[in-house]
Parts: sequence; structure tokens; C-alpha cells
Amino acid sequence: MNKLIEIASNSNNIAVTSHVDPDGDSIGSILALGLALKQKYKNVEIFTADPLPARYDFLVESKYIKRYEDVKDKAFDLFFALDCGDENRLGKSIDVMKKSKTVVNIDHHISNTQFGDINIVNINSSSTCEMIFSIIKDIGLTIDQEIATCIYTGIVTDSGNFMYDNATDKTHLIAAELIRANIDKQKIMYNLYQKKSIKNLRFLGYCLTNMEIELDGHLAIFEITSTLLDKFDIPSADIEGIVNYGRDIDGVDISVTIREESDSKLKLSFRSKHDDVDVRKLAELFNGGGHKKASGATLNASLDEAKALIIENAKQFIRR
Amino acid sequence: MNKLIEIASNSNNIAVTSHVDPDGDSIGSILALGLALKQKYKNVEIFTADPLPARYDFLVESKYIKRYEDVKDKAFDLFFALDCGDENRLGKSIDVMKKSKTVVNIDHHISNTQFGDINIVNINSSSTCEMIFSIIKDIGLTIDQEIATCIYTGIVTDSGNFMYDNATDKTHLIAAELIRANIDKQKIMYNLYQKKSIKNLRFLGYCLTNMEIELDGHLAIFEITSTLLDKFDIPSADIEGIVNYGRDIDGVDISVTIREESDSKLKLSFRSKHDDVDVRKLAELFNGGGHKKASGATLNASLDEAKALIIENAKQFIRR
Ligand SMILES: [Mn+2]
Ligand SMILES: [Mn+2]
Repeated sequence: MNKLIEIASNSNNIAVTSHVDPDGDSIGSILALGLALKQKYKNVEIFTADPLPARYDFLVESKYIKRYEDVKDKAFDLFFALDCGDENRLGKSIDVMKKSKTVVNIDHHISNTQFGDINIVNINSSSTCEMIFSIIKDIGLTIDQEIATCIYTGIVTDSGNFMYDNATDKTHLIAAELIRANIDKQKIMYNLYQKKSIKNLRFLGYCLTNMEIELDGHLAIFEITSTLLDKFDIPSADIEGIVNYGRDIDGVDISVTIREESDSKLKLSFRSKHDDVDVRKLAELFNGGGHKKASGATLNASLDEAKALIIENAKQFIRR
Repeated sequence: MNKLIEIASNSNNIAVTSHVDPDGDSIGSILALGLALKQKYKNVEIFTADPLPARYDFLVESKYIKRYEDVKDKAFDLFFALDCGDENRLGKSIDVMKKSKTVVNIDHHISNTQFGDINIVNINSSSTCEMIFSIIKDIGLTIDQEIATCIYTGIVTDSGNFMYDNATDKTHLIAAELIRANIDKQKIMYNLYQKKSIKNLRFLGYCLTNMEIELDGHLAIFEITSTLLDKFDIPSADIEGIVNYGRDIDGVDISVTIREESDSKLKLSFRSKHDDVDVRKLAELFNGGGHKKASGATLNASLDEAKALIIENAKQFIRR
């Protein structure tokens, strides 16, 4: 960490950003690190390529997060890429990275390509936020209430409320420290989980009613057409959780959503609940990637073609 | 705790039991304390009035838990009542309690009536299991892997996976210790949450599609007829979670399920997510009760009558 402190101290300006399609961990980690750096360093810019989903508005400092367009003409001495398995996950922000002097890559994805000048990658961490917690303390900055709120948000969203294996004893020790930093847990839970829209629940109802079960009960498939999203008036960012409902069925080893994107590509999301059912390898067959139990890919095919391909390829991964 | 050690040492036989309708916290706590006591004391009986739900079969020692009928003729020197707000929650096991020399009441319910000779009540504890963790250590017994598994099960089921306010910094510190005691977290999560039946999810799909929204979006109503339960082949114990889906909608203050029981009574379940929306008071209007944010009642009425009554009475409790 001494090297990080030295580089930061010698930097005139610092950029902190994360991946496209921002989620709780990416937003939580850039806000937490960005706000902490601002305690000591001038000219810290926190930005994202894409706008933030409204559910994270309760992170009060999130309204100061800039867009790529606001910073694209700047050249940074120090560029933090958080929660990005590879540089392409930065989307258009990769331009800004390429102009930067020193790139620090902080991430917890097993697939991380070590694309930074400095790479801090811990595949045993529940979340990038969990890593940021330790980094902030190691470089001598302070975890205040707002920063603690951001970190807690990233930890719970990436660990399924401590349900996943990635939530370790260390994760819980950090959660205890965050609670002692006076976070308003009820407010966080309310904003993350208790502000669902009626149309989203109607849509979930439709998906559960029409979920297909294949491979003798080992594979659950949700087909989500753009017509359907239009009919229920659902932004495609809002369908994230659907795939987990299939995973949590007794006997199902792999759950998948096939989602029609506006540009006629298909987006695939895979979930597994078993250590011996590796959906990252399944995603790789479609040139995708991710984690062992949560992965994704994109595909140029019709829905029916995609479904047939998934069923065929899933066979070798399901339990006998 | 010295007193507890002294009494236990002078007891020829010890009973450990909990409330009717066993749940994760009651099963987890009697198993954890019972197994720990067996490390040092002879003649420890762990029993329940009702059979255990099958989902807890993964607690390997649960098969040795006896029923009330197996122990009802014994007289115990020491009787532990765990997770019981009052003695009537023991069901028929109250007979055994009344014959016992010393009753120890260990619980976390705010309504606890202090019915024991020794009362260890902590209303700030997430669960009775959390209290049992400390008690086992305080009386010099060992938290082995099996005991840790039982305690973790009680904590997560009573705290909504650490989501509720009752999960404090202390709860997380204990969770960290339990993980270090080598629990198989994945096995616990799998058994508690990832063995859902397809028909249950289809039923959820139906309920979400047909959920009614009243009082300008402040009240969500699920009508569950016995015809519907028959059609989906759902045991009525399996519908518990449905009401939470209504609660978690933005703007909804009160969610209710109206369920037709086989004897033509209606069972009402109410949920709130706000401190200032007290559904216990709403339930009391129907001669029911419960907690501020989770309550229930029974009603002799037709579904339509019940719905009209609920809408009328809910008006004074919702937010303006
Ligand atoms: Mn992450
Ligand atoms: Mn309890």
C-alpha cells in the first residue's frame, strides 16, 4: 500500500470508475474509494460510463458521480478501475484509462486479466467493496458513515445478503465494523429491497408462470423478449433477479435467462448453485465469462436457436 | 452463569425444548444447547411437541430429537424452555415443565413473560440461537461444527439473512466465529433456500399476477382460496412468504393474505415495512395479534366480506 500512497501523493488528478451497467458493488466501491481519497487528495473525479439505476439514489453522494462525457477530455495521473474483470468492461471509459499515467485495477473476479499497472485482485473477496474497506484503512483514510453505507451496499448486493460462499468470516467482521460506523441498515434494506414496482412483480409473476424446465428438471429457462419488456414496461436492467428463481428450485442445477436486447442480440445469464456445476465454463462456450455460479454471454441468434444451443451445451454441465 | 453450571451439575436429568410449530431458531437452539450439554452432563433429553419440518433434516442430529410423547412421563430436575415468549407456546410440553424442579427461560421476544425460575431474556438479540452461542461459551462448553451449524441456521432464519435490524454488529461477529468453526454454509443455504418446488414457484407466479392493489397503492391483497391451493397442490404451510412480496412494493404500507382454511374460516396475515404502520393494531381489530410489522388473525366471513372489512379498517393505519 505504500506504493499506492506514494503514487496518489504524486498525482495531480485521480479518476475512479467502474464497469458499464453499474451495480451495487461498482457504485458502492467507486463512491467509497472516491470519497475516501477526497479526504486527502485534490482533484478526484468519480465517474461512470452509464447512468446509475435509481435504486442507488439513497447513496446521498451518488448525485455527484459524473458521466464519461464530463471527464473524457481530461488526462489523469492515476486511474482506478474497480470491479472490472477486464478493461473492456469499462465501456467507453477505456479511452480515459488509456490516456492515464498509472492504472490501478482493484477487483475480485476470478477471470481478472491483470490489465493494470498495479493489480490488486482477490478472488476470495465477496465484493470489490470488501477490498476497498481494507484498502481505505491501509492507506490511512477514514471509513465514515457515508463510506460505510456505500461499502455495506456493495457487500450485500454482491454476496446475496451474506448467503453466498464468498461471504467469509472476514466479510462478517467487516459488516460488524460497518454497523459500528453507524450505517442506517433499515434505510439501506428499504431502498435495495422494499421499493419494488408493481409492474416488476407482475412481470415476475409472468416469468414464473411461463418458466420452462428442461433436461429432466435440471435446467430452468426464462425467455424474455423485447415485446414482453414493452408489454410490462420493464427496463431491461430490472430483470436481473429473475434467473435466481430458477436456480433455487429443487433439482435445478442451471438456470438461464435469454433476453432480447434492443439491437437484436441476445443476452444470456447463467446461474448455478453447486460447486461442481461451473456456469463460467458454459458461458465461455458462448464467448462469455464471469464466476463459477454466475456468468453471462451475448449471442447473435434467434430465441429458438439460442434455447436449443443452451440445452445442448448445458447437458455436459448438469449433475447426472 | 455460575448458577446455571451449579444447577446443571446437581441435576440428574435435563430437558431442552421449545415452542409448537418448530422453526429454524427453535430447532437450532434446542439442538445447539442440548448437544453442548451432552458434552458434560448425562441424561439430556432434547424434544419438541410437534414434528420438525423436513427442511431441517440436514441438521444431522435432528433425527435424535424426541417428541413430547417420548418424555412426558419423566420428571426433570432442570428444564430449558427456548425461544418461547410465554409458557403456552410450549403447547402440551407445558405439562413436563410443570413437573420440573427448575425452569430456565431463554428467549429474545419482547413480549416474554419471565415465566421461568431463571430468565435469560435479551430482546436485542437477533435470535435465541445468538444467545445460546454466548451461553454455551460462558458455561465452558464447546461450539463444535454441528453446534455451529445449528446456531447459524437459527440466526439466518430469524434475521432474514442478516437483513433485519435485529442483526447487529454482535450478530456478525458471531457469524464470523461460526464460519471459523467450519460450518458448511453452502449446505445450510441450499437446504434452507434452494430446494423450492416448481409448483410453489408456479403458485407464486399466479399470486403475483392476481395480487390486488387498493387504497391508492398503499394496500396489497392476496386472496388464496382452498380451490387455488388444491389446483396448485400447495400445502397451506407453504404460502408463508407470499405476503412479503406485497410488502416490498414501493408505496405499499400494508400487505395482507386472506387464506381460506379447510374449516371455512379465513386466516389473515398482515405485514408492514414502516415503524409507523403498526399491523399488530390492525390485527387486534380482528381479535388477532403479533408484532408491529408482522401480525395475523382469523375471521369467519366470506372472502368478499373480509376484503371489504380489511380495506375499511386499513385506512386508518396507512401512510397519507
Ligand atoms: Mn463485484
Ligand atoms: Mn426466535
